[in-house]
Amino acid sequence: MGLANRLPISLLRALALGATLAAAILVATSREKVYLFGLTLEAKYSDTPSFKYFVITNIIASVYSLAVLFLPLAGLLGQVILALDVAFTMLLTSSIGAALAIAQVGKKGNTAAGWLPICDQVPRYCHHVEIGLILGFVGLIIYFVILLYKVLNISSFLSKS
Amino acid sequence: MGLANRLPISLLRALALGATLAAAILVATSREKVYLFGLTLEAKYSDTPSFKYFVITNIIASVYSLAVLFLPLAGLLGQVILALDVAFTMLLTSSIGAALAIAQVGKKGNTAAGWLPICDQVPRYCHHVEIGLILGFVGLIIYFVILLYKVLNISSFLSKS
Repeated sequence: MGLANRLPISLLRALALGATLAAAILVATSREKVYLFGLTLEAKYSDTPSFKYFVITNIIASVYSLAVLFLPLAGLLGQVILALDVAFTMLLTSSIGAALAIAQVGKKGNTAAGWLPICDQVPRYCHHVEIGLILGFVGLIIYFVILLYKVLNISSFLSKS
Repeated sequence: MGLANRLPISLLRALALGATLAAAILVATSREKVYLFGLTLEAKYSDTPSFKYFVITNIIASVYSLAVLFLPLAGLLGQVILALDVAFTMLLTSSIGAALAIAQVGKKGNTAAGWLPICDQVPRYCHHVEIGLILGFVGLIIYFVILLYKVLNISSFLSKS
């Protein structure tokens, strides 16, 4: 791939880096203390495995974005990066799916399972996590665009040749 | 792509079709009645939005697998299918992530949020869903292999030419 292709992808990578890093930090710093019936309860992301998974995958994706920002995209290494792009996009997708599923229960509860919504008790915690998830979603969309761009770019080159 | 490439992908598509269809059916038919303190409770997939999402995405992916089984892979249509492969793989990934996150709470509960595990009360329901999720995961892996195979195949062709 030439410089004309390299530039927009590098820009997207930098944007993705920013989004996934901000998402990880926002969710990881979400905590709220609440006093209920004389008890002090603290809501924090590390109590929920799905949120931990979200933070970890977004940190890994951030490191990856930073690393490939400076790597060449051509040849065998380009192929490895393309395969890694597929894998990381899927990793982020699964973490967003998991975190959103839990956030939905936190907001609406699940009557059949007897799980009560908790966001009325810890609104600031929920809001903080929410913004983190939105940023994670933005990061994922950028990853998706990079992948689609690369894949269609390569295959259109093929169909013309 | 020639017939030599077409054949393994068609085989994988057929396998993916079987796995996602079986996953959707298994989760959709999961239900168990339980009698607690004189009350009749029924656990069913449709009480949980994430499981509904899982069933819907797996049905959509099954229809897609069936449709593209008979479509040509070359030219512009091949490019559209490649883009759809990326999209569907991500759709399945998100649904597995969401369903696994909820299944984890069903099994272990979440002490901090006060959500109790329910699988001790409805073990058959949980087991049924579990097998469905495993099949969904198998379907996803096949989708991933198809995508990786196509992407690397195309890009290796490029790096040689």
